[in-house]
Amino acid sequence: MSHSACKPVSSSVVGQRLEAVADIRAIHEHVLANSFDLLQTDHTLSGIDMALWDLLGKKEGTPVWALSGQKENHPKLPYASLLFGDDPAATHSAVRRLVADGYRAIKLGWGPFGRHGVAADVEQIVAAREALGPDNHMMVDAGTIFGEDVESAAARMDALANARVHWFEEPFVGGAFRAYHRLAADNRVAIAGGEGCHSPHQAEHMIDHAGVRFIQIDTGRLGGITPALRVARYAEKKGVVYVNHTFTTHLALAASLVPFVGMKDHEICEYPVEQKPLARDLCQTRILRDGSGRIRLPDAPGLGVQPDPAVLKQYLVDTEIKVGGKVLYRTPQI
Amino acid sequence: MSHSACKPVSSSVVGQRLEAVADIRAIHEHVLANSFDLLQTDHTLSGIDMALWDLLGKKEGTPVWALSGQKENHPKLPYASLLFGDDPAATHSAVRRLVADGYRAIKLGWGPFGRHGVAADVEQIVAAREALGPDNHMMVDAGTIFGEDVESAAARMDALANARVHWFEEPFVGGAFRAYHRLAADNRVAIAGGEGCHSPHQAEHMIDHAGVRFIQIDTGRLGGITPALRVARYAEKKGVVYVNHTFTTHLALAASLVPFVGMKDHEICEYPVEQKPLARDLCQTRILRDGSGRIRLPDAPGLGVQPDPAVLKQYLVDTEIKVGGKVLYRTPQI
Repeated sequence: MSHSACKPVSSSVVGQRLEAVADIRAIHEHVLANSFDLLQTDHTLSGIDMALWDLLGKKEGTPVWALSGQKENHPKLPYASLLFGDDPAATHSAVRRLVADGYRAIKLGWGPFGRHGVAADVEQIVAAREALGPDNHMMVDAGTIFGEDVESAAARMDALANARVHWFEEPFVGGAFRAYHRLAADNRVAIAGGEGCHSPHQAEHMIDHAGVRFIQIDTGRLGGITPALRVARYAEKKGVVYVNHTFTTHLALAASLVPFVGMKDHEICEYPVEQKPLARDLCQTRILRDGSGRIRLPDAPGLGVQPDPAVLKQYLVDTEIKVGGKVLYRTPQI
Repeated sequence: MSHSACKPVSSSVVGQRLEAVADIRAIHEHVLANSFDLLQTDHTLSGIDMALWDLLGKKEGTPVWALSGQKENHPKLPYASLLFGDDPAATHSAVRRLVADGYRAIKLGWGPFGRHGVAADVEQIVAAREALGPDNHMMVDAGTIFGEDVESAAARMDALANARVHWFEEPFVGGAFRAYHRLAADNRVAIAGGEGCHSPHQAEHMIDHAGVRFIQIDTGRLGGITPALRVARYAEKKGVVYVNHTFTTHLALAASLVPFVGMKDHEICEYPVEQKPLARDLCQTRILRDGSGRIRLPDAPGLGVQPDPAVLKQYLVDTEIKVGGKVLYRTPQI
């Protein structure tokens, strides 16, 4: 250990009491005081936090959303994320397939977007809106392609406004608040961002200083459900819409919905559509769309989604970390 | 690897070209694009960046400060950091010793500060100023003791103003910009912070939104000399004073002085006074005060400070990381 703020996260977790929500908050304070100089702490703590909420909910026989103090489990409208096709025709047919599958909100991004000039992007945007029809929600994700270059991002704003996009996501790298703020001055298109935040402060700074109208929080990066609840309340107070960022399992989806399930007007949520086999098979419970195309958190104790240890076992990789002849970590048996 | 932004840092460094400063910047872009979702990347890259500048400087026969485009190697006034004593008398005599040793700037912090009420802190502050004499610089470091509690920090401002402290450091946790900004509205005392920043954006946000008049950058956390140079230029443009944050070796000291050695008016620097044996013995070269109590970067190629492999060897710990039967890391031979 080089100094006092570099203790392993486990030393602040193992052996602590877990009988109430206040105990989870106490564990957070303990971890952050003892390990803030290990950057990876926020990500490690994210997984621990979700497990603590799940455990406590199961112990109490209460869903985590209720345990967190929220009054209702409002349904959310899931959007499907899609890569832009290689050309507008490919984008058009991919969007049509998702609309036929019942999605009422679709986000397009990455792929060729921002790489082949303004005219090419305009054609893609027009094709996507045409395939979606006039009433479904359309979002565009630039995937930080413009770095900190406001002019290049601004050159797409006419087309985005004409297509009535619900939001324009991550035009710039996450920390480029001055660029976000300048682009947001064009009020026709709402700007979204925040998935990279790994503390509630960072998310609050983005709300305060980047001009975003949607704040996208990854519960698996921010430090877990505990700080995400704080950001959701802050967003509500500031008139910014909270959205989850989730692209893996339905267990991660459940944990990412908890922080804003009580906020009825924050209706849209990200939903993993094209899952990899690991993400798809890991959960015994799945959160599926109802007849109106919406999803709801399960009303079961804890997070309400069970992982399948037999599936997890298939993906285990034998790992061993040895320091000074002593084994500090070895892949556990399942 | 779970997804594309999780590649090991080494894969973006090993095998790259290193013939000019532009190559270092290219390696940064490469690492950040491929590894931004591993939080530890910024710290790992910090050490790599310093080594790259040192290597390039040695290859060119040029000091790193000149290689970075700065015109002069201005001397800096080093301050000694000291814990507040258990009582005002202990603080008084500890400060007297450092003044007798020739220090013209002293920072006091931590220990009992903020823990035993306002009156106790006022007595400590008065004792320190009395021991320092009227002309030496006095700084106070609250070590984030007040969390986000503005009122408690504000209750110390009269005493800090009366003692004419040069800055009041880290009254709050690093991300509490709203608290910093409110306290900074009391213009009598300059606020300092920033040592925890691990990207140039975070430091720029602190300059823009926290009201600090001193920005303290740890080159070993921010990502190295390359982003620190960017922050130093930004601070200068915004009328904020740049200060290094350094508490380990003279090699780290050299790397932390490089970014602002050309900025004459940014005169004060942190200087490791009570080094641990590892930090003290590791460097064959030491950066010592001259007759006026100032220090200067060595005018030697690279960083100008040589580590001693024989000392390093004493502190090596055998470490091995094995994944799927393959050794990914083993402590190297020296």
